[in-house]
Amino acid sequence: MIHGVQVTPLRIIADDRGAVLHMLKHSDPSFAGFGEIYFSRILVGQRKAWRRHVHATSQLAVPNGCVRFVLCDQREGSSSGDTIQEVEIGEMNYQLLTIPPNVWFAMQCIGSTDALIANCASSVHDPTTVERCEVESQTIPYVWRN
Amino acid sequence: MIHGVQVTPLRIIADDRGAVLHMLKHSDPSFAGFGEIYFSRILVGQRKAWRRHVHATSQLAVPNGCVRFVLCDQREGSSSGDTIQEVEIGEMNYQLLTIPPNVWFAMQCIGSTDALIANCASSVHDPTTVERCEVESQTIPYVWRN
Repeated sequence: MIHGVQVTPLRIIADDRGAVLHMLKHSDPSFAGFGEIYFSRILVGQRKAWRRHVHATSQLAVPNGCVRFVLCDQREGSSSGDTIQEVEIGEMNYQLLTIPPNVWFAMQCIGSTDALIANCASSVHDPTTVERCEVESQTIPYVWRN
Repeated sequence: MIHGVQVTPLRIIADDRGAVLHMLKHSDPSFAGFGEIYFSRILVGQRKAWRRHVHATSQLAVPNGCVRFVLCDQREGSSSGDTIQEVEIGEMNYQLLTIPPNVWFAMQCIGSTDALIANCASSVHDPTTVERCEVESQTIPYVWRN
């Protein structure tokens, strides 16, 4: 497991009219500040990869569909250096994924419906503090699968 | 229009793999603090009504489906007292709805698919600071429609 990555079960409150799904509170132990909340859809069969945020902690939940996150630790001096970790979360396995700064991550829609990812990031998005890498990269030794 | 209610257009960034949808930044003029982010689903044809938050400002977006919000101002001394306001937002009309404290609100799914509402509230949910009222209430003179 990658140092600093957390996977925290989240509560779903059932309701005949439509459930309520928790995500993140100011008082949660994993809360790292509020910069911005935004959504990213991933259509069936698609991937979005790779990126890492220099400063921001990403807090991710998947209220619709199901997503495989792939994380890769290339932080200098990290105790989990060169580790690759997969985390599959979604509406049927509803958990919060916390990714610390400088950990590479990718997302793949693995369900039969489009997925919606919510990211409650600790800083406002700033393109100068995001690094990107192609899906098929020499830098990150990951073999994609369906 | 109800005093303090804001409807702000939000950006959708198209992407063949799935769009990115903005919601709320720390630096936005309407930002009123971060307490909690959670989701509420509303199934086709359903309503959730009524509630008002004593302290919290609600910041609402609908990344999936389409929702009619009905707002009712019964704040003492309000310049828009006894006004009812409807706001329809959703993935096809993607906007942020800001509801100040003490304004009653209700939500109705008006699309042909289930809707997902995100609420980025300025305080952590506290049942003792939420007032509720039945869908069909003498207090709020609103005639429901489809």
